[in-house]
Amino acid sequence: MNGAEALLRTFVASGVDTCFMNPGTSEMHFVAALDRVPEVRGVLTLFEGVASGAADGFARMAERPASVLLHLGPGLGNAVANLHNARRAASPVVAVVGDHATYHERFDAPLQSDIHALASNVSSWVSRPGSVEELPGAAAAAVAAAYGPPGQVATLVLPADVSWSEGAEPALPALRGACGGVDAETLRCAAQVLRSGEPAAFLVGGPGCRSEVLDTLGSIASATGARVICETLPARIERGGGRFEPERLAYLAEMALAQLDGLAHLILVGAAAPVSFFAYPSKPSWLTPPDCNVLRLAGAGDDCSFVVSSLAETLDKTIGRAAPQSRAALRPRQAPESGPLTSEAVGLAVGALLPEGAIVSDESITSGAHAWAASAAAPPHDWLALSGGAIGQGLPLALGAAVACPDRRVLALEADGSAMYTIQALWSMAREGADVTVVILSNRSYAILNMELKRVEADGDGARAREMLDLRRPDLDFVSLAVGMGVPARRVTDAAGFAQALGESFATSGPSLIEAVIVR
Amino acid sequence: MNGAEALLRTFVASGVDTCFMNPGTSEMHFVAALDRVPEVRGVLTLFEGVASGAADGFARMAERPASVLLHLGPGLGNAVANLHNARRAASPVVAVVGDHATYHERFDAPLQSDIHALASNVSSWVSRPGSVEELPGAAAAAVAAAYGPPGQVATLVLPADVSWSEGAEPALPALRGACGGVDAETLRCAAQVLRSGEPAAFLVGGPGCRSEVLDTLGSIASATGARVICETLPARIERGGGRFEPERLAYLAEMALAQLDGLAHLILVGAAAPVSFFAYPSKPSWLTPPDCNVLRLAGAGDDCSFVVSSLAETLDKTIGRAAPQSRAALRPRQAPESGPLTSEAVGLAVGALLPEGAIVSDESITSGAHAWAASAAAPPHDWLALSGGAIGQGLPLALGAAVACPDRRVLALEADGSAMYTIQALWSMAREGADVTVVILSNRSYAILNMELKRVEADGDGARAREMLDLRRPDLDFVSLAVGMGVPARRVTDAAGFAQALGESFATSGPSLIEAVIVR
Repeated sequence: MNGAEALLRTFVASGVDTCFMNPGTSEMHFVAALDRVPEVRGVLTLFEGVASGAADGFARMAERPASVLLHLGPGLGNAVANLHNARRAASPVVAVVGDHATYHERFDAPLQSDIHALASNVSSWVSRPGSVEELPGAAAAAVAAAYGPPGQVATLVLPADVSWSEGAEPALPALRGACGGVDAETLRCAAQVLRSGEPAAFLVGGPGCRSEVLDTLGSIASATGARVICETLPARIERGGGRFEPERLAYLAEMALAQLDGLAHLILVGAAAPVSFFAYPSKPSWLTPPDCNVLRLAGAGDDCSFVVSSLAETLDKTIGRAAPQSRAALRPRQAPESGPLTSEAVGLAVGALLPEGAIVSDESITSGAHAWAASAAAPPHDWLALSGGAIGQGLPLALGAAVACPDRRVLALEADGSAMYTIQALWSMAREGADVTVVILSNRSYAILNMELKRVEADGDGARAREMLDLRRPDLDFVSLAVGMGVPARRVTDAAGFAQALGESFATSGPSLIEAVIVR
Repeated sequence: MNGAEALLRTFVASGVDTCFMNPGTSEMHFVAALDRVPEVRGVLTLFEGVASGAADGFARMAERPASVLLHLGPGLGNAVANLHNARRAASPVVAVVGDHATYHERFDAPLQSDIHALASNVSSWVSRPGSVEELPGAAAAAVAAAYGPPGQVATLVLPADVSWSEGAEPALPALRGACGGVDAETLRCAAQVLRSGEPAAFLVGGPGCRSEVLDTLGSIASATGARVICETLPARIERGGGRFEPERLAYLAEMALAQLDGLAHLILVGAAAPVSFFAYPSKPSWLTPPDCNVLRLAGAGDDCSFVVSSLAETLDKTIGRAAPQSRAALRPRQAPESGPLTSEAVGLAVGALLPEGAIVSDESITSGAHAWAASAAAPPHDWLALSGGAIGQGLPLALGAAVACPDRRVLALEADGSAMYTIQALWSMAREGADVTVVILSNRSYAILNMELKRVEADGDGARAREMLDLRRPDLDFVSLAVGMGVPARRVTDAAGFAQALGESFATSGPSLIEAVIVR
């Protein structure tokens, strides 16, 4: 068999059976091999940023990598922003970048560029097998590298002749690496901190945002008085349905500083110590109080569930059994039945109507904060945030999550400005019949930048600057955009209409889009 | 003044007065400075690939750089594909990449990434001034580097605190470097080759594709019997209006080999020696016959006009004065008045209706070949091709060309698959009132890949592979997409309707889109 077929068979044996792709000429043998390896599902996208973001969404929900097939350096470039997000989310992703044939490289053909340089921005694992014999082993190593833990973006550069040459055999499957544990000394320290009675908080993120970890932390918190705070933009957090709900660290540095003020101890569980998203003149970048002790209990590659259970056991021996966290009764939920369509009304409707098992892809930026709060009382669901901060994630992530979990409803809460970065995702949603409800929070502005313009103390508030942050002139018509890509859509301008549209979309299979024109 | 203002003033003094942008928080001081430096025109785009492609289009037509403002590594990533095209076109572009404040970098905030690695894919000149004092000089150096010659993408990484700090003064303007000339020995060799009577051809590209160079080459050709061939995808060629029209090197390697077969000498004028776009099994990558002598008369950084004039003078002394190339009489042009809408019918209509001074942004891939041939007899116009091969160039390039040349009509000949990579350009066309006629050649397929699948000898022609090259299911509706971004649009399905729509669009100011549904 040729290299491409051996590559796909190695992937399948290693648990990688989905490929989001934008192929070009150098990837034609990979594409042709799909017919000989039907276990691999190919999902076509119209733009590489959709493919890479979908692979991230797939990985966050399936907890295994998809592959993403890209066309030389420019294709990888187009994928970089969402690969950056995947890297920050510690999502396992195998990026396959088709390249010129090995012997063609020296001719510097038009599409030649330094692929390795690009890849090194998002991948600490990059390999370019130089022969068909090396390819299957490199493919298995790529999958193993992607798994981690922690998960990462592994980039396999695939020369066309390596792909088309005969004589390959699939490699042995990649094995998943083991998670790290915790040492007794760290546990002892953490227990001592919690026993001390000094103001303490857990900061939970990454793999710590699963419900069993959070519930255990909730029990420890109720026994010790420690607070539990989750990072601002968790890659995936299980919440709702009476699960323990942590505080969420504020996005704005000044608010986060206030939240953390007075803490003597911050215990990290799968999270990094919090820093400001951006630097602001006269504001600190480091958000933890200067005299606060930061203890790393578990990192992104560790078994957070094991670690916090061990901590709970340790505490049992020293301060008595932590009270099991009682599951909060679900609050009655009510979508607003009248009034203007504010972002609060959107949030209340989402909280009231979100179905059990929903997956929320949240790129709502300024308009979606209310939805997070209102959905705490919703049935169990997953919430996926913009861990890497590179906008254009939301719609591709929703596509990938829907492909990973075809029996669950995906809700994409999407700001208008961000939506336009990867709007092409709508077409793939239609093509795949993905059960995605897209809500465009249309405030017709890069609203966050209007806020940031003040926060960075940029002097002047001139018309020419404002013009660069404004999405009017012309207004974007998301209904037309969606229809143009085969996704049914409607526009709503009041709270009751939004709730009705949302409920109907949740009840209808396949994708649909709601343009929610928000009162500014 | 602060760094951002000094940067803009340095740019203006150096001839850089247009900025295509997708700003974020770290660029807010740059944006705010627009109100204090009104000489700079900011053009907002919805996606960085639009901004970078527009800067390329601007540079190709204005022959000076625009700047493009990008947001950290992910923003640069989104711009990479079209910066790759700009690099291959030797377009002068100054990419300004906003970065975290210098002191913020060590905190590894979510948007932190290795910007230098990304930039090195497209730029051989990258600088990151570390203080406000260094910034203006770095800005002038960036412009000088971008000018070349040859033109290039210069990347200036701009930390937020360097931008917002006070105490800067504009630097002295950047000077344009001088073009290279030619030495007597090279001229003597070329003249000798042309005198020899052996089969010879000029391969012209890059700065050689200006009309005065081509007309001189045409005169030399008629005096010596040499052929004049232009590269497959010239960044910008001046043609029409009776100017000398060179042969065009075929895209398909097998056809190019046939074209060049039998040549004893190939004389390069602004072009590189031709190589196959991709490698194909059992086909050579090097397209010039093995025993053909390749002589580099002028490179991309040389003054091609001076060089070929010098050659003509040298030949005057040895073989008598070269006959001046007679301007061909314009052939009568006729748009088809009936029949199905084939790609040939599109080409004939373009050739018949193209207005004087038009700028054609050609990303028509498989469907547009006829338009090139049919427009040779059109009034004088410029033709901009996909020099770098990274699709998603055509619409942004058209936007930038229209901003550079507001008194000229731009025609974007755009394949449907390629259009979707940077479809967001339509919104900026509407916002800027750009005189762009967008023709979407809608064959509902990545048609070139269906051809390439066979050419690379990928075995099998299976349904699953074909599915990855197909743009049906659902059909893209470009009329809805355009209307959604504020661009008037219509769909045409026959030859007469297309000609009528094209003529009306040419006669109407502002952008409009024609979806030409091509018979496959």
